[in-house]
Amino acid sequence: MTSVDSLQAALNYQFVDKTLLDQALTHRSHSAHHNERLEFLGDSVLNFVVAALLFKRFPKIDEGDLSRLRANLVKQSSLADIATRLCLSQYLRLGEGELKSGGFRRPSILADALEAVLGAVFLDGGFDAAQKVIAGQYESILVHVDPKTLGKDPKTLLQELLQARKFDLPAYTVIATHGAAHNQLFEVECQIPKLEIKVSAPGSSRRAAEQSAAELAIAAIHALAPAKGSRPARARKSTQLSLPVAVSQENK
Amino acid sequence: MTSVDSLQAALNYQFVDKTLLDQALTHRSHSAHHNERLEFLGDSVLNFVVAALLFKRFPKIDEGDLSRLRANLVKQSSLADIATRLCLSQYLRLGEGELKSGGFRRPSILADALEAVLGAVFLDGGFDAAQKVIAGQYESILVHVDPKTLGKDPKTLLQELLQARKFDLPAYTVIATHGAAHNQLFEVECQIPKLEIKVSAPGSSRRAAEQSAAELAIAAIHALAPAKGSRPARARKSTQLSLPVAVSQENK
Repeated sequence: MTSVDSLQAALNYQFVDKTLLDQALTHRSHSAHHNERLEFLGDSVLNFVVAALLFKRFPKIDEGDLSRLRANLVKQSSLADIATRLCLSQYLRLGEGELKSGGFRRPSILADALEAVLGAVFLDGGFDAAQKVIAGQYESILVHVDPKTLGKDPKTLLQELLQARKFDLPAYTVIATHGAAHNQLFEVECQIPKLEIKVSAPGSSRRAAEQSAAELAIAAIHALAPAKGSRPARARKSTQLSLPVAVSQENK
Repeated sequence: MTSVDSLQAALNYQFVDKTLLDQALTHRSHSAHHNERLEFLGDSVLNFVVAALLFKRFPKIDEGDLSRLRANLVKQSSLADIATRLCLSQYLRLGEGELKSGGFRRPSILADALEAVLGAVFLDGGFDAAQKVIAGQYESILVHVDPKTLGKDPKTLLQELLQARKFDLPAYTVIATHGAAHNQLFEVECQIPKLEIKVSAPGSSRRAAEQSAAELAIAAIHALAPAKGSRPARARKSTQLSLPVAVSQENK
């Protein structure tokens, strides 16, 4: 385990009581004095501070959008990304079993430990300290948040994209199913006649295949008419990387 | 609408910017400047402050129990109770339709408005003010929280009660079903042979009937051996109020 000094520097917070930080970095597989109570506390201070940051940053969006944005910013993979940036895995105390199975790389363990560290900051330095640390970690993330799209699923995004252009909704059709009852693979086609787009994608459920097909359709639309600021070459490349995609050369 | 002065007194908080309190009391049916964004903010400050209060008050219980307690303390009916104590319905601004249909009594509207008021306190006075108001409202509630039982369902409580006495688990049996496929009524029997308890209860699902039967079984156990401090007469009365209950006279 590396000294926690560099972690404190990355958090921009110095603990008065360093045993709190040690506990926050201790997984239950390591010892009984583990981080799960701190994680409970950290999860709630994090949810609140991110809510307050979003409330202030986006004064016009409604509470449904605020909830969606927050859910996306505090979901496990987002927290694991922050934990990775902080090199949190270097400081974790894991039991033998978790160490051997690579637990220090597991997103759930990283996300939980990050929450526990935030809970420890709150206990050690009070609310203002926790708020400052959380705001510091989310500063660079919030700059890139697009409240219209972040956290929306591809089908919703595609629908909104088409509605904005006054086009009809896309049509999804199951064109094939493979495999036995409990292990089926669905292939779904997404058609947008107005744009002569017809793409298909596989998925382990009809719903999943529809979402993947919608993602390809969005890529196809961007390839036809690249969004401002994005390079056409890049958009086209991403379309070609995807599976069976038929895109007409002309936009009607 | 009554003047908000008495509400501020009940909250033990004076707003600097009273328009925030007005907005918090405005339902979306009344006007566009409604309380839903404040509700989002208030929900998260409430969740955090209650988490911190529980963390401090119960230093030995694990995070699963902390979560269960918090879920119970911030659920809609708990918030509606606090809102009722604050006479919040007197101050609500509702649209015509909601007014006529008695919206000022609806638990969801009361709970949401309470959260919005807490969000308004946070915006107006900062975190410390919100924490003080929330702690003030929960003070008398927290005194009565039993971390072993609050928020647990009857089947879990019954199981724990029996395990503590080293008795076998209760046996649940569906003894009758009535009605057509989508509108069935189940009758479930709960047996505890060691205590010669056999009770049965109806429910719209097997699960619901089991929970009701477990509740009757707990009442029956308390009737056999009243908990310290509770009066036997009262326990017996509650058992007799319930449906088909067969309780032996003696505790083996």
